[in-house]
Amino acid sequence: MKPDVRKEVLTRLRSIAGHVRAVERMVDEDRYCVDVLRQTMAIEKALERVDGLLLEGHLQTCVADAFREGRSGETVKELSEIFNTARR
Amino acid sequence: MKPDVRKEVLTRLRSIAGHVRAVERMVDEDRYCVDVLRQTMAIEKALERVDGLLLEGHLQTCVADAFREGRSGETVKELSEIFNTARR
Amino acid sequence: MKPDVRKEVLTRLRSIAGHVRAVERMVDEDRYCVDVLRQTMAIEKALERVDGLLLEGHLQTCVADAFREGRSGETVKELSEIFNTARR
Amino acid sequence: MKPDVRKEVLTRLRSIAGHVRAVERMVDEDRYCVDVLRQTMAIEKALERVDGLLLEGHLQTCVADAFREGRSGETVKELSEIFNTARR
Repeated sequence: MKPDVRKEVLTRLRSIAGHVRAVERMVDEDRYCVDVLRQTMAIEKALERVDGLLLEGHLQTCVADAFREGRSGETVKELSEIFNTARR
Repeated sequence: MKPDVRKEVLTRLRSIAGHVRAVERMVDEDRYCVDVLRQTMAIEKALERVDGLLLEGHLQTCVADAFREGRSGETVKELSEIFNTARR
Repeated sequence: MKPDVRKEVLTRLRSIAGHVRAVERMVDEDRYCVDVLRQTMAIEKALERVDGLLLEGHLQTCVADAFREGRSGETVKELSEIFNTARR
Repeated sequence: MKPDVRKEVLTRLRSIAGHVRAVERMVDEDRYCVDVLRQTMAIEKALERVDGLLLEGHLQTCVADAFREGRSGETVKELSEIFNTARR
């Protein structure tokens, strides 16, 4: 992972961990379930943005290297698997 | 929120918070980006299962009450909004 | 289904059928795969908007009736199932 | 697009077009909205499988060529865009 991607991913994961703890408190305080649901869905969107960063970094480094070095088979399989998991 | 749903949601949120911290460590240790990506996507699936619990609880309690008491307009709007957010 | 929802859903489904045929032609003409992919994903979004209309209509009619008539159990199960299918 | 992928994609798109027409008939006959919704969601899944085929073909041909020929920048941008659109 490139240093700038890694730093950005870490910052976002820390913020997401804080968001999860805040939602735990909302449930503890028995807040309205739709408000809780809106927050859990917001966390999912935040995680999807992390996925986007990770994938872009992966394409720019590992995938580029794999294709240049003739190891494209495994990389294509991994990318297809990631794409299919992302949709499910 | 019904007590059993609340308890189950809390247990799952704690487990999800632990999972997020574990992924932070993976990034800190500069692990392979595809392995990190698989974990962030697994956390999203875990959060979606929490959404499912929250929604089912919401339908059984708040939505049932709202329809019985003739306050269905706002509830229908909220459910449509949740459904549309869930797909995006 | 309410007549206005039904009419709107039919109009959109006809437009979607035309879009699918247009994509078939693109594939027949061996167009760039990313352009084809953008179109199939656009059709999915169009179908999701139809889902949104169907669900909103369902909530305003069948669900409202079911809750008023004390048949909420089956309705809650159906809505949870729809929500979970929509996310997968 | 490789000939076998193209043939498979065309077969699936024709089946999807038939499925859309069948759903139009269901709406015309005023069938239960949840049954219609289940079918529109099934068509989305069928389209997502076409996306999977298109992407895998794209990775094996255009992407492989682009990386080998040093034109990786545009390809990385396209793949990131596809991934992000797929999640929305």
